[in-house]
Parts: sequence; structure tokens; C-alpha cells
Amino acid sequence: MQLGTASLIAAEAGAATATIQGRHRARDLGIRIGRMPTGPKNGITDVAGVEVGHTTIIKGDGDLVIGKGPIRTGVTAIWPHREIVDEFLPCGVDAPNGNGELSGMLQAKRMGVLNSPICLTNTSSVGMVYDALQTLQPVDHWPAGTPVVGETWDAELNDTVGRHVTSEHVLDALKNASNKPVIEGAVGGGTGMICYEYKGGIGTSSRLVEANGETYTVGALVQANHGTRELLRIDGVAVGAELAARNRPEISPELNSIIMIVATDAPLLSHQLDRLARRATHGLAKTGSISGNGSGDFTLAFSTANRIPRDAYYGGTSYRLQSVEQFQLGPYLEAVSESIEEAIINALCMAEDMTGINGNYVPALPLQQTVEIMRKQGRIAGTRYE
Amino acid sequence: MQLGTASLIAAEAGAATATIQGRHRARDLGIRIGRMPTGPKNGITDVAGVEVGHTTIIKGDGDLVIGKGPIRTGVTAIWPHREIVDEFLPCGVDAPNGNGELSGMLQAKRMGVLNSPICLTNTSSVGMVYDALQTLQPVDHWPAGTPVVGETWDAELNDTVGRHVTSEHVLDALKNASNKPVIEGAVGGGTGMICYEYKGGIGTSSRLVEANGETYTVGALVQANHGTRELLRIDGVAVGAELAARNRPEISPELNSIIMIVATDAPLLSHQLDRLARRATHGLAKTGSISGNGSGDFTLAFSTANRIPRDAYYGGTSYRLQSVEQFQLGPYLEAVSESIEEAIINALCMAEDMTGINGNYVPALPLQQTVEIMRKQGRIAGTRYE
Amino acid sequence: MQLGTASLIAAEAGAATATIQGRHRARDLGIRIGRMPTGPKNGITDVAGVEVGHTTIIKGDGDLVIGKGPIRTGVTAIWPHREIVDEFLPCGVDAPNGNGELSGMLQAKRMGVLNSPICLTNTSSVGMVYDALQTLQPVDHWPAGTPVVGETWDAELNDTVGRHVTSEHVLDALKNASNKPVIEGAVGGGTGMICYEYKGGIGTSSRLVEANGETYTVGALVQANHGTRELLRIDGVAVGAELAARNRPEISPELNSIIMIVATDAPLLSHQLDRLARRATHGLAKTGSISGNGSGDFTLAFSTANRIPRDAYYGGTSYRLQSVEQFQLGPYLEAVSESIEEAIINALCMAEDMTGINGNYVPALPLQQTVEIMRKQGRIAGTRYE
Amino acid sequence: MQLGTASLIAAEAGAATATIQGRHRARDLGIRIGRMPTGPKNGITDVAGVEVGHTTIIKGDGDLVIGKGPIRTGVTAIWPHREIVDEFLPCGVDAPNGNGELSGMLQAKRMGVLNSPICLTNTSSVGMVYDALQTLQPVDHWPAGTPVVGETWDAELNDTVGRHVTSEHVLDALKNASNKPVIEGAVGGGTGMICYEYKGGIGTSSRLVEANGETYTVGALVQANHGTRELLRIDGVAVGAELAARNRPEISPELNSIIMIVATDAPLLSHQLDRLARRATHGLAKTGSISGNGSGDFTLAFSTANRIPRDAYYGGTSYRLQSVEQFQLGPYLEAVSESIEEAIINALCMAEDMTGINGNYVPALPLQQTVEIMRKQGRIAGTRYE
Repeated sequence: MQLGTASLIAAEAGAATATIQGRHRARDLGIRIGRMPTGPKNGITDVAGVEVGHTTIIKGDGDLVIGKGPIRTGVTAIWPHREIVDEFLPCGVDAPNGNGELSGMLQAKRMGVLNSPICLTNTSSVGMVYDALQTLQPVDHWPAGTPVVGETWDAELNDTVGRHVTSEHVLDALKNASNKPVIEGAVGGGTGMICYEYKGGIGTSSRLVEANGETYTVGALVQANHGTRELLRIDGVAVGAELAARNRPEISPELNSIIMIVATDAPLLSHQLDRLARRATHGLAKTGSISGNGSGDFTLAFSTANRIPRDAYYGGTSYRLQSVEQFQLGPYLEAVSESIEEAIINALCMAEDMTGINGNYVPALPLQQTVEIMRKQGRIAGTRYE
Repeated sequence: MQLGTASLIAAEAGAATATIQGRHRARDLGIRIGRMPTGPKNGITDVAGVEVGHTTIIKGDGDLVIGKGPIRTGVTAIWPHREIVDEFLPCGVDAPNGNGELSGMLQAKRMGVLNSPICLTNTSSVGMVYDALQTLQPVDHWPAGTPVVGETWDAELNDTVGRHVTSEHVLDALKNASNKPVIEGAVGGGTGMICYEYKGGIGTSSRLVEANGETYTVGALVQANHGTRELLRIDGVAVGAELAARNRPEISPELNSIIMIVATDAPLLSHQLDRLARRATHGLAKTGSISGNGSGDFTLAFSTANRIPRDAYYGGTSYRLQSVEQFQLGPYLEAVSESIEEAIINALCMAEDMTGINGNYVPALPLQQTVEIMRKQGRIAGTRYE
Repeated sequence: MQLGTASLIAAEAGAATATIQGRHRARDLGIRIGRMPTGPKNGITDVAGVEVGHTTIIKGDGDLVIGKGPIRTGVTAIWPHREIVDEFLPCGVDAPNGNGELSGMLQAKRMGVLNSPICLTNTSSVGMVYDALQTLQPVDHWPAGTPVVGETWDAELNDTVGRHVTSEHVLDALKNASNKPVIEGAVGGGTGMICYEYKGGIGTSSRLVEANGETYTVGALVQANHGTRELLRIDGVAVGAELAARNRPEISPELNSIIMIVATDAPLLSHQLDRLARRATHGLAKTGSISGNGSGDFTLAFSTANRIPRDAYYGGTSYRLQSVEQFQLGPYLEAVSESIEEAIINALCMAEDMTGINGNYVPALPLQQTVEIMRKQGRIAGTRYE
Repeated sequence: MQLGTASLIAAEAGAATATIQGRHRARDLGIRIGRMPTGPKNGITDVAGVEVGHTTIIKGDGDLVIGKGPIRTGVTAIWPHREIVDEFLPCGVDAPNGNGELSGMLQAKRMGVLNSPICLTNTSSVGMVYDALQTLQPVDHWPAGTPVVGETWDAELNDTVGRHVTSEHVLDALKNASNKPVIEGAVGGGTGMICYEYKGGIGTSSRLVEANGETYTVGALVQANHGTRELLRIDGVAVGAELAARNRPEISPELNSIIMIVATDAPLLSHQLDRLARRATHGLAKTGSISGNGSGDFTLAFSTANRIPRDAYYGGTSYRLQSVEQFQLGPYLEAVSESIEEAIINALCMAEDMTGINGNYVPALPLQQTVEIMRKQGRIAGTRYE
């Protein structure tokens, strides 16, 4: 179950006849996005302190009855670190397109501060998730931090309008979060999502940056619900166009969006993190997206290197950052582009087929065909799964 | 008909001995902000289609027991027009300072579109109010519009952390909204707010603009919870400094904020409405504010002149605006500054004393003293209430 | 030592008959803007390292002959510090309205870095001044910093279209810059400017901020060319309305603008300086401005506390800031509002009458009447000049 | 010389032995970027009214003597339409990274208006080009429009610091502009530019959009001076990595930038054009860029469909747009991404080798090898030049 390997059925009789079974991360399939090294887990939890948890809600089948189901949704919770409501972090933001919501973005933009866990869910559950996050707040005279809740629209598969995410689901996702490798695919907030007209959802990746004699990590996590099949590129290869030519999708993904979270342990401050957030677009574009008209594409980037005490932020006490900025951002910018690009491909590679409301069926990205198309173009190195 | 007249006790024996009793709007006191004419109601409901409703929740006294009370809060609901979830409006935004939340601002900024009623409440109730607004959404395959919920922090008087605003409160405020003169002061979302260390809350005002042979209206509504007493200016007069010299406040309003809503029936589009939104700062500053470090000062401006069908916005149908932009914004900019300035003063003039949690007491702006100070400086014209 | 004292003719026989002669700074007239203490020079050169110089070009009289004159213009040069092209500074920006140019603003916004002296001039001379600044650049393989040139429109008095500012004028202003009290009024880039329909130009002021046991300085300098007479407020007093009632101006200042520069020695970084820059609007608004439709109102704020070596910025070397951010910006925000407000009033108080092209005459703000109006309202404390 | 065809030497004896000679546009080589149809000229001049002219300055060889040469630079002038100083256009902007200058961007952002020809040149010539554009302005009391001058850094090949662009060069480029197919490669402002460590410069492309029963055009023009060879992608194919493996460049392009201009005849307004401008990043990213740390990457997008009279913009006259906005931007967004991507590849394909200062040599993109690499991956359709 971990990272795709559990479901691996090894090839029996050589590449010619073997087929890829189960779901596997892009890198395990021999897909190599970019030129920078990944962290050990190749995910956002490579950034020390970051923890991720999911609540996945899958219930019922058949015709949609609003308020009853079928349900295909959930919550993905990200702790920038566990004490975030007491010790804030510098952050930056970007919004390639704005047809949606990522609450707290204005505070992030103007104040440069993140003071809440980040939750990702479906569009209609933002209010409930926001409300649940407010129960985390310390009971004293300082106000709550501003909850950060991102959403994408899953009404093709889920009884979205029924608003099935409860406070308990949110608190569960927060509680079960860990720094282990992130479960990817159709889980948590990504459960009902569609990406390039294949099953999408949660994906993650990371990169290592050498700077000033130290090694820093940049990690990305996406909730991917965007894109037209025909435009999908994997490591530049026009996989989507070739697959679309074989098999026309019946899905109409006009309101596709993506939420992109970037974490780093490099001591960057908010105006630098704004610049990092901008480069998520570069990674997104490289997978084929044009950030469509109806998309709500948002990026939030934070650094764990400096913690700002809540009292210092709100109150009268003075505070100086312990670790401070540097100016050569080039490798960080590239790391953001690479890790976002790979996180999106991971979401596609790890998500399984799903049937949702009214029998709507969304296929998983066909890994065997994908690998074959890419191998022909010399873009597969050592796939172990066929 | 005047909102302050019910409580009026007319002066008996001449100005020397008469005192102002009850609460009265600034203009009724002889305070004249600016040089432009007001609309008939001198409020945001002068803009045709705009409706405002309040739910005010006041319960209990004595010591704070979180989750029990005392409660001093509520919701103020603004319908840009009643069909807003089906017919969207162009809008613009600004954020003088960002320590807070006004949900939907990013959509407003990037897409230039408002597609939700606007609700104002306390900080801790944003999630619940947001959730309630999502129940308004049409049950079809297009996604919900993005709810617009603004907040300010009322923990000096209210059991904020107890989160006492329910979905029913929100729906009530929406339902009882009307185009009548707006009830001002410590009502709705403004119930527990403090402004310049006096009791604050909801205020409104409007201005008329002559352009191209037509008369357009600019209306403002604020939820005012900001400012240091010493800095308060009314029509330029340093009322706050003089009052503070007589009576030092015991309140420590470090996290003061204001939400400012601007409505117009002039056919302006979103980049013009961005420019109007900017001028709310000018009106705010003229009352003495410096948009303090911990403030979440946000402005949303919308125009009712063009309605964008939901299908045209989300779907494939084409749409062209019926009425289009003009370039001489000068009078609109001044109208925004004037009406925001007067709306803030109205909030102060109309709010009554309040005792909240733990016996915390916040006095109303002393109208008699205010008028006397201003009269000495020749800034009172014909007060009828003393 | 006072910049206005040379022309002072002392009152002879008591207040009743004495009149104010010459030009005097607001504070010398008994006008006290705000509640914070000023620096020793009450100007931007109170910030250590900041130097200001002017080249004032006044030639000819009578009818306008484009390319010949009459000329009423110049350049004001501000060194953030003398080594700015080698050692960059963090900076922030804001643009209340955008009908004009302040070059380098985008670099300031995105990179958060100032790497050029700042020059202020008339609209038509931006190219020439920009070009002159490029000659300062070091002759090595790193590119030039981006010159920062701000402008306002002086065609009511000056042969603007004739473009009379030369490279020599620019270099002279840079060379003769000093940390002495700034010459104010109709000098340098402000020579031909009009403010609230009175003679405007350059003004400056400063404030001291106590923080963390240290005293920091916030200094402001404006090139003021904005506003309608009727709206002018001095310390809140409606001086403009009263003066306009006595004497209607014949000037039509539709395209009025202001450039606002803020300097501080507090160790603030770019996203904090963005927030400081925003508060220049608060000071501007308090003088009566609504940032009119045709204005180009720009603010640039920089901090001298951290210097970023050019090599570290452009090149491969690593760099860490020596002094780092703190979070309680409140007093800095108020200092910006106060010092901008006073700088504008100083520009008005110090500028003398001017006759320019085609015999166009712009009167100076009548100080005697101004003081009388303000004294009636108790807003004059100890004027020494009558 | 036109579009690469003049220098074509047709293949003699079949594909196996033939080699591509001369320079050819990407599409002529069989490279097909995207899925949308191009305009007849496949360039920005497909947008009616848009005209482009170049002044190319190439003088001297050998060692750099600052002020003498060698010179490898010039100016590219774009008329949005010939009467732009009298009839303004709606525009939008974006800045993926900000280490540089595109003057007039703030006016474009805040006012949403373009009122100047656009000139592209080298970094050190911005002031002179800006100054030259100011001479175009009408001699009346309205102020000049704000000149729009973009720059990239060409010091590897050109005596940049010598500032060799004169007012005459600018006026020549403006005068000789036409609506013919744009000359591409190392011409005009692009003369000395380097792109992905190959010779870069000017490139253009266009796309047709069907909307509301009408055909609109989106055209792009770039001055491309950005990128690391290893990252170059052409239609997704990792051409750069493969070429870099064969031949390591000796150039160190740390301060690479790109200026991107988008034109359309669709009746879009400024906030929509802001959204179009954003999608230039998507096209740029698809060629491999990560918008490096030292880059000044700027985009300006304008629409020719509505003209705003100068008097209406500055003066008191009222004005309403003739043609107004629609909401389905999807195809326009894709058209921007595609045409920017192809414009960059065209710049590379059309630029020839160049030797500049100190004998510095920059090779052209090797077309034969490029086509071979791409053919192996099935991404070449019908190249006619080998």
C-alpha cells in the first residue's frame, strides 16, 4: 500500500509480455522529472516537521441523492509543524487563476505569515473545514490564526452539494497526520478529483538544494483536479495527445483547478517565498496546463526555518528572526518547478479508477501505455514494473 | 423615519441647557462630511437592489464561560441583489492591511466577479457563516459561487471562542434583509465591535454622482472595529484627542480592523472597481486610522449595473456586457472617500454603550461632548438634538 | 539654521498687527501634525546616510516657445546612501493611483531591492534622467541597477515638452547632495509643481520610533503636485475650503500627482517596507487628497539597516542579512502617515509664488490667513512669525 | 530573407544526406507547437493595426573599448496601432520575475491603459529610448503618455555600457515599422541576446480563436535572452539536454530575461488582459525556463478592439467603450501559451551565429541536430529543408 510498491506484481517473463500492475509513483516507473536530486521520501514530508494526514470518505453507489451520496470526498491535512498555532511561519503565495478559494491567502500575502494547519477538501466543504480548524485555536485573548482551507470541485464523482465532510473528519485528518511518506492518489481532499480527464487527487515530490554548504529541502504537495487530456505532457512527452487519440474521454472538465503547497526548510522570508510560489506555475505548465478559464489555481509556500512566536506577532513583545535571508534563489526556483511537476504526475500515476455518482466512471492513467509511449521517446529509464 | 429619531428627546429650553439624548446619525447632529450630496437614505441601500439585514445575538451577562457566553455578536447580510447566485456582478477589492479574512477576495481580484451575498460577522464564526452561505447554492452541476464572509475580532465583549453564530442566524439575516434604511450601531456583525475605543459596529452612508447626464449612487457600509481613541478625527476635528485627554480608556484595542463594502449602480468594471476600493483607505484615514499593525482592513466594491449570467460565467455560452465603462472616475473616487468616512462616524454615533463578558464596559461616543468640541471649531451646522 | 528664517521679518508691535513674512515650515508656524517626536532636522536626512540635492532650472519669462522656455523645472536627487550602486537596500512600494511613472517600481516590488539613487523631475524628463543615472553604473560585467526616476506634470508653469533637463543637471543634483536639512518648496524636481492649487514642490519631515530599546528614524520626502484647493486640510482644519471661498483659483489641476519617498534606519525587510509604503496614503489622505482619477501617486520605502553587496545579489556568492526583522510595525506605520502628512504641508508652506509660461501665476499658500484660520480652531501652538 | 525561406537550400538527394542550411522558422522545420491554428503570417502583425520595425546596430570587432564598441544591439519598435498616442488601448500586465525594467507597467496595471508605442532594447539604453519616445508626444496641454520600454542584458556580445542606441535609431525603428511578417532572430532589440545559451533575439507567432461566430487573433512577440541550455525543451522534447551533452557551452547566462508582448483584436478589457498576460508564463515554462533568480521577465498584453480617445482619458469628456467583454477566456489563454512558446522557438531557429565583444562567440541553435533529435521522438512533421 505504501508508495505503490505493495500492489506491485512483478513482471514474470520479460518486458515484451509483462504488464504493469497496480499503481506506482512516476519515478518507480522510470519517469525522471528534472535534474535535481529528490529527498529520501520524494515528498513534502522530507521537510522536517511537516506532517500530512488524510480522511477519505467513500460511501454508497448509484444515483445521486443530494445529502445522501454517493460520497467520494475527504480532507487532506498538512501541519507545517505541529505547533503552528503558537509559532507562526513566514509564507508566500501566488494565484495563477482565481476561480475558487484558498482561505488565508490575503493574510499570507500582506502579513507574510502562516498560522494555521492547511486543509484541502472539496469546494462545498470549505466552511465546515474552516470552522473545524477554528476549534484548534488557543483559548486566550489573542485571536485565532486564520485557517487555511483550499478546495477543488469534485461534483463529477461526489455528492458535493450534500456537504458530507464533518468537523470530525477534519480533526481525524489532523490527528492521524505523520511525517511518513504521503499516501497519494484518490485520497483525502483528492478523493473525487479528476486530472487531465484521468483520475487525479493528491501527489507529492521533493528536491534537495545545496546552498552555503548546507542541504535544504523543497517539498511540494498538490491536489490536482485540472486539465484537458489532450494537453497532458509527462516529462515533455505528449502522452495525453496520444492517449486521447486512442480513447476520447466523455468527461467535461471545464472547471478544473489545482491547489499547490510548497514547503522548505531553507531560511527564506515571505517576499522570497512569494517568488518560490510563482514557480509552481512553471511546473504546472510543464504538465500541459494552461490554467483554464474556470480554474482556481492557488499556491502557498512556507518556510519552517524561522518560527515567529504568537505573542511576538500579535502582542507587544519584540522578536527578531533567528535565521535570515540569502539572495541566490535560482536552485530553489528550479526545485519548486521540478517538484510541482513531479507531484502532479505522481497524483496521476497513483490514483486508481473510480466510479462515483450516477455511475460516472473516471479511468486511472493507463500506466502500461504511458510507459510504452515514453519509452519510444527514450524517456523511460529502468522501469521495474513490467 | 430617521434611524436615530425614535430615541430623540427634544431640547426643551434652548441650546445652553439642552443635552443630546439617544443616538443620532452624524448628519442629524449637524456633522457634514465632504461636499457631495447624499442619497435619500444616506446609506448603501440607496443603490437599487442592495438589501441589508441583521441578526443580533445578545445573551447573558457576567463572567465568560466559553461556549456559554455572555454573547454579544451576530451577522450582517448584504445582498448585492437578490439573484446574486444566478447573476454575478463585476467587483474590485483592496486590502490596506491583511491580518484577517474576507473570503472570496482572491476570486474578486483575479476574476473580477462577485457571486455571493456578503456576510459580516466575528472572527471565529467565519467558517459557520461560510458554510451557511453554501446552502444557498443552486443544486446543479455548476459549482457554488464563492461565499464572501468578512470578520472582525470582538473578544473584548463577546464569547468569541464559543462560536455562537449558527446557520439559522445567517439565513435569518439574509431573509430579513431589505432595502430600507440600514439599522446602524451595535447590531448584526457589528454587535460586539469597538471603534476608536468607543462602541463601534455597523455604519453606512451614500453619495450621488452626476455623470453623462445621469445620476449614479455610491453607497458604503462598514463594520468598524478599529482605531485608537486619541487619533479619532471627525470631519477633521481632533475630537478623539480632546476626549482622550478628559477620559483615558481602559480598553486595549491592539487588533482592530474594519471591513468596508462599497456599492454603486454606475456601470463600472472590475479594474475600475479596484480603483474605487482603494479610495476606501482615504476615507478611513480621514477618521484618524493608520491601519494598525494587527488590523485586517479589507474593501470590496461592486457595481450592480451589469449582471453576468451564471451560465455565461461558468459555461460555454457567450455573453457581452450591456453597459460599459467610462473613464472619468474622479467623482466616484471622492464619493467612496466621503461615504466611507461618514459611514465610520455613523457607526460611532449610532452605537450605544455595551457591557459584555466579564463586565467589560465600552462607552458610546459621547455625542453632547462631540458636538460641543466640533461647534467650537465651527464644524457643526444646525444640530437639532440639543 | 531654519530654512525659512532668512526671510523672516519679525513682528514689531504685537500679534494684532504683525504679519507673517517670508516662508516658514509648518512646525515653525505652530502647526503640529501628529503626536510623535520629529528627528533633529525634521526631514529625510535625519536617516543616517540619506543625502538630498537639487538642481533648480528657472529661465526666461513670457510666452511659451517649446524648446526655448520659459523653464521652471529641475531635478531632486536622493542618495539612499552614497554606495547604493554597490550595496543595495531592501525596499517596498505602493501605488495609490497609476497614471504616471516611477521607474524601477517593478524591480522594487518583485525583488524587494533598491539599487539606484532616486531622482524626481518633470514628466517629460524621465528618459533623460534615467539615461544620466545609467552613467553612474560600475563598468564591469554585472548589469546596471535599475534607475529610479519619479515624475509629476508641471506644464502649467514650465516648458515641459521642451525637455530642458540635461544629464549635467542630474549629475549636479547628485553631486551637491548632502545630509543637511533639505531645501523645500519650489526647488529641484518640485520647481514647477502645484499642490492644492497653491505653489507646491518638495517637502520633508521625519519621526522617531522607540523600539526594542533603540531609537529609529522614519523620514519622508514628497514632490507634491496634487489636489483641489477646496479639499485641503491642515492638521484636519478645512483651510482649503475657507480659502477657496474667499478666492477662487483659476488653475485647473486635473492631472495632479505626488511622489512619496520613505526612508528608515530600522532593520525592516521588503514585505514590511511594502506595508510602510501603504501608509503614505493615510498621510496623503489626511491632507485632503482623494488620489484623483488622473494622478500618478507612487510611494517607495527603503531601509538603510541592511546592505546587500552587489556581488551577492547578482552573483554566486552567498549573503545573509546582518540585522533582521521584527513584527511590531505599528509605530512605524504611524510615523509614515505623520511624516508624509507634514512633508506635504511643508511643501506648501515653503514654496513661494511663481509666474511661469504665458504669465501663468500660481500663488503660495497664504501663511497669515492659514495661521489665522487654524488659530480660530485652536490648532496653532506658539507661532513665532507674527 | 523573409521568414527563412530565402536562405533555403533545398535537399538534393533525399533526407538521408541532405542537411538544413540557413535559418528557418520552427513551423517550416516541421515543428508544431500546440493544437490551435496560426494566423496567416504566424506573427504579431496578424493582429490588424500592429506594426513592427527594427533598427539593428552591428559595428566593429575585437576587444571591447567602452563607448567605442564592438556594437551588437538595436531597437525593436511595436506600434499597437499608429495613432496610439491619441487613441489609447486597454492592456494588462504580468511580471514572472522582476530583475529589470519594462517602463509603463505600473500605469498599465493600475489604469489598464497603454498609450505609447512599445520599444525593446538593451538594458543600458532604456533612458535614451524612453526619451526618444517622449518626442512623439502631441504638443498640447495634456501630458505625454507613458513610454513603454523593455530591456534585456546583452553585455556578452555588445558594448552595453557604451550606450550606443540614439534617438535616431528609435525613430527609425518606429518609422520603418510595418505590418509585414516580422523579421526574427538577431535583429533590433534582440541583436545581442542569448537564449538557452544559443543565439537568441526576436521571435513571433500567432493563433486564431473562434468565438461568438467571429475569428479573433492572438499574436505574440518576444525578445528572448533567457535560459540554460540543458533545460531547453522544443515541443516537449529535451533538445537542450541532448545538445548540452554533446557540447558544453562556455557562456554563463546568469542574468537572462525575456520580454513578452501579447496583442489581440478580441474585445477584452484590462482585467481580462491581465489574465492573458499571466499565461505567457505557461508558454515560457514549456520551453524549459524556470524564470531564473536574476531574470526580468515581463509581459504586456493589449487589445486593439476598443480605442479610448486621449481627451476622454485625460479630460472631462465622457466615453463608453464600443465593444465589450465576454467571459469565456479559455481559448485565448491557450492561444497565449502556444504563441509565446512558438515565438521563443522561432527566435532560436531564426537567429544566426554571432561573434561580439572580445571575440565572444555564441552559436546558433543547430537546426539539423535539433530536427534529428525531434524526429527520433516523432515530433517532426514534414520538414522541407533537408
